[in-house]
Parts: sequence; structure tokens; C-alpha cells
Amino acid sequence: MRRVSAALVHYPVLDRQGAVVTTAITNLDLHDIARSAHTYGLEALYVVHPIAAQRELAGKVKEHWTEGSGARRIPDRTPALRALEIVEALDDAVAALGRDAELWTTSASARNPSLTHAAGRERLAGDGPPVLIVFGTGWGLAEAVCERAHAHLAPILSQRDDGYNHLSVRAAAAILFDRLLGGR
Amino acid sequence: MRRVSAALVHYPVLDRQGAVVTTAITNLDLHDIARSAHTYGLEALYVVHPIAAQRELAGKVKEHWTEGSGARRIPDRTPALRALEIVEALDDAVAALGRDAELWTTSASARNPSLTHAAGRERLAGDGPPVLIVFGTGWGLAEAVCERAHAHLAPILSQRDDGYNHLSVRAAAAILFDRLLGGR
Repeated sequence: MRRVSAALVHYPVLDRQGAVVTTAITNLDLHDIARSAHTYGLEALYVVHPIAAQRELAGKVKEHWTEGSGARRIPDRTPALRALEIVEALDDAVAALGRDAELWTTSASARNPSLTHAAGRERLAGDGPPVLIVFGTGWGLAEAVCERAHAHLAPILSQRDDGYNHLSVRAAAAILFDRLLGGR
Repeated sequence: MRRVSAALVHYPVLDRQGAVVTTAITNLDLHDIARSAHTYGLEALYVVHPIAAQRELAGKVKEHWTEGSGARRIPDRTPALRALEIVEALDDAVAALGRDAELWTTSASARNPSLTHAAGRERLAGDGPPVLIVFGTGWGLAEAVCERAHAHLAPILSQRDDGYNHLSVRAAAAILFDRLLGGR
């Protein structure tokens, strides 16, 4: 079984027009994805943000739930939020995991070649370097992140005839963790 | 294929101590679960709240994304939020679906007997009355809802040795829709 972590990237990501932008941190992203990641046995959730004030905000959310009054009120959240790591750039996450760590990007649209979820599941169950599953906020990861990735996970396809497929990053992360690591 | 909808219940649900309470509406629940439900082909997401002012709030969220400036800014959200139905009680959702509709409850803890996700998937793929998948906010659905249910879906089990299992209702709904209705 390989070591698995996730990263939530706020830069470089795309906006609606496809321009590269920095997005703001959404409090509930940190909670939801940290709780899902911890439930599925991931080691850490790296929150990637280039702006110091935004990293401080994420740090305060973490502190509230690991040491502050949130930890006393709802102690169930503590282990999940303790696994939140706040970093300036994706390279900081890679450095923490080890230089051989593999980046697996995610997207709502197909990329060629892509790694099916079944094949990804098999790879994670085997031996190999740590894997960092990378999620983009906004309208998805910028090309610069995808280009350096070791694999692109296939998108979660819509079940509708009209192809409607607009999952939140919180929902997409939960579904992917379940497909890659969930009990069968 | 059976018709499937979901309900998000704010009363009667449990608090941390197991008392029956009414919870407040969380804006992002409506968005996330509506988007997940629509992506997986569910007909509607019923938001159940006994307090008129809270139903009005949910109605304003819906209006913003189906008719207001939100609809113009991010039109992708419109079809999902259009399928949001705001009702006073679970019975209103059942009445809208038809008297023969089946309630399938969800929970983070096991209940005996429970419907496995594989068996639920088979049932949905066959013929039969409409199904309403019922999610509780707070610390889960009150016994009064579970007692009248036609089936109790098995919990999503933790993959960790310590059994940590604290998914948000948004994440749990996304995973269950995928297990019951996702492409395989």
C-alpha cells in the first residue's frame, strides 16, 4: 500500500475564461476535504496558497479545531484538521513527501492519456513512491501543474444524457477517495 | 430504472447528545448536494425545514442561482438549483413523489437490517416506485424518521484501523450517489 496525500491548489488555477488566477480559501473546503481524506486513510491534506494572509487564515482554522474552542466543542474534527498542512507552493508539499513523490492531477474534463480509477486503485494498492492527488479550485488546475504530473486521473463522468457534470471540489474529492481507496 | 430523489432533513434530527433538534440551513449544503444530485441524475433535492424563515432563506438561494445574478454569472449552477424543492416536512416530499414512494434513510452508524450499496444499486436499476434517499443534518436522522423508512442504507465504512469516520453530509451524499448510481 502506497502512502497517499492530497493537495488543494489555489494557485495556479483557472478562472471561467481560462486565465490563470489565484482563488481565495473556502473555509468549508478545508473541513470537508480534510474529513474525507482522514476517513479514507490519507496522510495529509496540503492547502497550497501563495499569499501569506490566506495561509494565516487557514492556519487559524486549523488551530481552532486542533487546539482552540472548536477542538473542545467537536473533538471529532481534531484528527482530520491536524492532518492539514498549509504550504506556499506545490513544491513544498512534494518536498515534505519526498522527491520521488508522484503528482496525480484531477480534472472535470478528459485528458489523454488518463489513469482510470480502477487502474489508480491497483497502483495505490501496490508498492511505490508516495502519491499526491492534486485538486484545483476555481475552474481547475492550470496547465503548468498538469504538465509536470506523473498521471492524470480520469474525470468523474456524468450519468445524465445531457452530460451535466458540475460537482463541487468537495464532492469530487470525496468520490475520488472512495473510488481509489474505499472498501469494496 | 426507478425515479430517485434525495431529501436533506433539518428536523427531526439529533444533536451531539442525542436530543431531537432543528438545525439551521447551511448554504453550501444546498449547492453541493444539488450539484451532486443533478450530476447523478436524481430528479430533485428536497430541503426539509419546519421554520418558514429558513425556507425563505433557501428559496432566496434558489432564486439567486436560477433567476438572479448568480444565474447570469455561473449558469452551470442553474439546472442543479432548479431541482431544489423547499418543503416544510418530509411528508410533503413524499406527497410530491407519490404515496408509494419509498424512503431510504442514511446514517454514519450501522442499523439492522441494512441495505448494502450493491443491493441498493440493483434495486434502483430495476422497476418499482420512486425512491427518496434521506439525509440528516446535525448528528443524523431522528428515530421517528428511521422507523418509517422502507430501507436503511448501510453506512460508508472507514478504511482506517482506528475506525475514524466523520464525513460531512455533503461528502457522504456524493459518495452514496456514486455508489448507487455512478458509472461502473
